[in-house]
Amino acid sequence: MLIPQPYLLFLGDVTDPLAAKTARGIQVWRPEQCVGELRLPGCTVSLGLEELDIATAVARGAKTLVLGTANAGGYLPEHWLGTVRAAISAGMNVASGLHHRLADEPELVALAASHNVELFDIRHMRPKLSVGSGKKRSGKRVLTVGTDCSVGKMYTSLALEAAMREIGLKADFRATGQTGILVAGEGIAIDAVIADFIAGAAEALSPANEDDHWDIVEGQGSLFHPSYAGVSMGLIHGAQPHWLVMCHEMGRPHMRHLPHSPMVSLADCVEANIRAAHVTSDNVQLAGFAINTSNASEEEARAYCQQVSAEFGVPATDPVRFGIAGIAALLKERG
Amino acid sequence: MLIPQPYLLFLGDVTDPLAAKTARGIQVWRPEQCVGELRLPGCTVSLGLEELDIATAVARGAKTLVLGTANAGGYLPEHWLGTVRAAISAGMNVASGLHHRLADEPELVALAASHNVELFDIRHMRPKLSVGSGKKRSGKRVLTVGTDCSVGKMYTSLALEAAMREIGLKADFRATGQTGILVAGEGIAIDAVIADFIAGAAEALSPANEDDHWDIVEGQGSLFHPSYAGVSMGLIHGAQPHWLVMCHEMGRPHMRHLPHSPMVSLADCVEANIRAAHVTSDNVQLAGFAINTSNASEEEARAYCQQVSAEFGVPATDPVRFGIAGIAALLKERG
Repeated sequence: MLIPQPYLLFLGDVTDPLAAKTARGIQVWRPEQCVGELRLPGCTVSLGLEELDIATAVARGAKTLVLGTANAGGYLPEHWLGTVRAAISAGMNVASGLHHRLADEPELVALAASHNVELFDIRHMRPKLSVGSGKKRSGKRVLTVGTDCSVGKMYTSLALEAAMREIGLKADFRATGQTGILVAGEGIAIDAVIADFIAGAAEALSPANEDDHWDIVEGQGSLFHPSYAGVSMGLIHGAQPHWLVMCHEMGRPHMRHLPHSPMVSLADCVEANIRAAHVTSDNVQLAGFAINTSNASEEEARAYCQQVSAEFGVPATDPVRFGIAGIAALLKERG
Repeated sequence: MLIPQPYLLFLGDVTDPLAAKTARGIQVWRPEQCVGELRLPGCTVSLGLEELDIATAVARGAKTLVLGTANAGGYLPEHWLGTVRAAISAGMNVASGLHHRLADEPELVALAASHNVELFDIRHMRPKLSVGSGKKRSGKRVLTVGTDCSVGKMYTSLALEAAMREIGLKADFRATGQTGILVAGEGIAIDAVIADFIAGAAEALSPANEDDHWDIVEGQGSLFHPSYAGVSMGLIHGAQPHWLVMCHEMGRPHMRHLPHSPMVSLADCVEANIRAAHVTSDNVQLAGFAINTSNASEEEARAYCQQVSAEFGVPATDPVRFGIAGIAALLKERG
């Protein structure tokens, strides 16, 4: 799957800024792939991009209309269909991260076929996969792992890709979640594959490559999250990472959505991830910590990162506040 | 899902005894649920059950025709369809473990509807699932885990169920694979669920129960198998086991189908499984080892089991050769 870029980002008529998380992620990480935004009357959210209609967006090269916001329930509202139809009729592909599938609307399927464009239902992609083999492959791979869900693995992966490219490394972000896939234009929603194929999906996502090429694989979940650890485990084995970056939120009291599940310690989490990765990657090492410190003052954040760095002997940073150049430099130096 | 028992076991016209593995498993573990077998001309495999035609089987109470053999490729041969049609027309349900789905044959679907019977495609059941919560629940649970795939986790689970029932415990086998589901008449093919729902499936499979009730959950894969560890991990978390039984094949040189993946040591495997289980089950313990010693002499087998038992301080047995009463007794005593 390769979603043709650049995009026109469709925001619908949402009023909750959080609903535009996907669209904002694309805009932050691939601004050059966003020709503009399209909003319906009543929409109070904006990315600050130029507002374009379909015709103008096509004229400026937009290849895909991205449904970049989700209303509650993830369905496709009737009054969004006019925009989707107009985009298809103008020759644009449509990519959606909604639960409700474009492919379940026969009218849209027929219209897309007649205009020779594609409909991408990101949450429901079912690539043909094999089970993982664990066979050694060439190229270098970094995997972001985490103490929990939603601690910044996608952000960290994309920030690391940017920082590594900046110091001259060949680095490609490999997306495993919905927003990441729209950012990269490709990827596999790894939590949506059949359980037997998790590791195989991760292998397919980060195939053998040149010896000096880096894949930065977006992690998912946590080995310590009672809901999603299976996904994390298969991803660790399939990614066959040479380096791990541990993502964490400073001060989070318990596992996300599970007040009965205490937060794991950084030391236990690092050890468990290194052990798991060791099954397919003999010399896997910890490259550093990416810590979301948004709930703390800058001073507290700095002190915490310094303390973690001293304890583990690797860089620890908040990539949003302090950047991630230290981890990129370590990877460049130690390869 | 509850597949109505007893069964008529359909063997088709296979000639490879291994192809009847599923049918044989049902016959070994639930002989009282097998009214007979049905073979086509050319079939050289038999379970030694009485050969019955459809009408006689129905008269003797058979509720479901089980396609209990697989031809190479797992498809449904044209010349088996006559038997399937006859069973449906006689009021029997049909359960199939083939890759090819009964539900993909519109003629069979229509026939089943008109006779008010059900078609069960075991490999393709998609129960409505939630993600796992990791919340503590009542009842006792044992999970079989393994150093590898195909080391006897289903056999061990069923043998343990039988041994525990024999000493007066309330024990129920909980099936996670195809053959196990046909044996139990219910279960969830856990390697076929969507990755996000592995732990949730295991929770649904072994729900809260009476304090003195035991679920014996059939394990899958291995934390050290590069293809399937994600499934194993989610199952461990969702099963929330109080006790683990470690299954192993004596002398196996490397992970199944993966000559480049060395076999894990028992000590490392036990430790990793206990650590993983600890995420949802604080006091999880090892109950013993179930070792497939079929490649060794009885003397070697005994010596190996004794050595393992001495090293870990728990029973170690080959359940086929020596039974599994020692582990059942330990569970009864220590609860």
